[in-house]
Amino acid sequence: MSSADADTDRARLRRTQILDAAAECFRRNGFHAASIAEISKAAGMSAGHIYNYFENKDAIVAAIVERGLDEFQEVFERFASADNLRDTMLAEVDHALECCLDLNECRLQLELCAEAGRNEHIATLVRRADAHMFDRFVGLMRSVLGPDMPQAEVDARVEAMFALFDGLSVRAVRHPEVDRQALAGSMRRMLAALFEPD
Amino acid sequence: MSSADADTDRARLRRTQILDAAAECFRRNGFHAASIAEISKAAGMSAGHIYNYFENKDAIVAAIVERGLDEFQEVFERFASADNLRDTMLAEVDHALECCLDLNECRLQLELCAEAGRNEHIATLVRRADAHMFDRFVGLMRSVLGPDMPQAEVDARVEAMFALFDGLSVRAVRHPEVDRQALAGSMRRMLAALFEPD
Repeated sequence: MSSADADTDRARLRRTQILDAAAECFRRNGFHAASIAEISKAAGMSAGHIYNYFENKDAIVAAIVERGLDEFQEVFERFASADNLRDTMLAEVDHALECCLDLNECRLQLELCAEAGRNEHIATLVRRADAHMFDRFVGLMRSVLGPDMPQAEVDARVEAMFALFDGLSVRAVRHPEVDRQALAGSMRRMLAALFEPD
Repeated sequence: MSSADADTDRARLRRTQILDAAAECFRRNGFHAASIAEISKAAGMSAGHIYNYFENKDAIVAAIVERGLDEFQEVFERFASADNLRDTMLAEVDHALECCLDLNECRLQLELCAEAGRNEHIATLVRRADAHMFDRFVGLMRSVLGPDMPQAEVDARVEAMFALFDGLSVRAVRHPEVDRQALAGSMRRMLAALFEPD
């Protein structure tokens, strides 16, 4: 490994440490109460060191949202290369449930959404990320539902799908002891209905 | 109107004023940052006056959650007295969407859920309210799906239904410009699937 590669790896590791620490601070005390001082304490590095990587707290949130998009991209690639999107998506529901009901991730998403309701900068970030994922899924669903379905109908099916999965963040808090396997069955039933012709 | 009735009406009005003001403070600055002093300012009454009605901030949150249950009760009564639950529920989706996408209500629910992730007292309140609504809906769905369906399956269908509606709070923030009429159509499709036999 060259010394430049080692530097890049180290930088990537540091960034990950900072984002993990910041996410934990946002969950624990809310976005508003989390300061760079607190994040630096949680990350085990100086505030000055953090400023080498991120200009301010907003830049950290932007990077957290961006990281969520990277994870989405992996899921999306699997769907985009599937021979049968419907079957692949239904088969993925159990795995998706594990990810979408992860309490730490849910608490972070809920905090970001609550904060987006009062902070235009965060609202812009989460909406832009959502629009990106939404457009990708609309493209996928269009390829299954055919060229004749009205755009509003394709959009609405993706919107309903997103509502179902976004709702899991709320359910993880409101009803943590859910039977995941049984829930996956009901979700498959609902998703299958979205693949039916108009 | 007797003077006792007038007192009760006045007390009810005051309580409503306090709850509305507190809800607005929670939305605006988050639960944690909202103080009785700030709530009293928003409600246009003294902190001492507020303490006549509520012991502390936790008691105010409990009353806000309780008020949500009262609204649910009205919806529930309509469903419980319906000749055909499935058709009544599908017909109600447009109206439910208007309520569930109300941005002020969504912001409050998101803030309560985010706070429930870090505050055991609020978590207990929202879980108890959720369990109450859940059990009522399970009873309704059981009456439609018949006595032979396993309990886990009936529970899972209600859970999936709740996830879909709870997800609307998140969607209201992430994608505010949704086509509600088209979305209602896709949601009806998904809900209808939950009424099908196993």
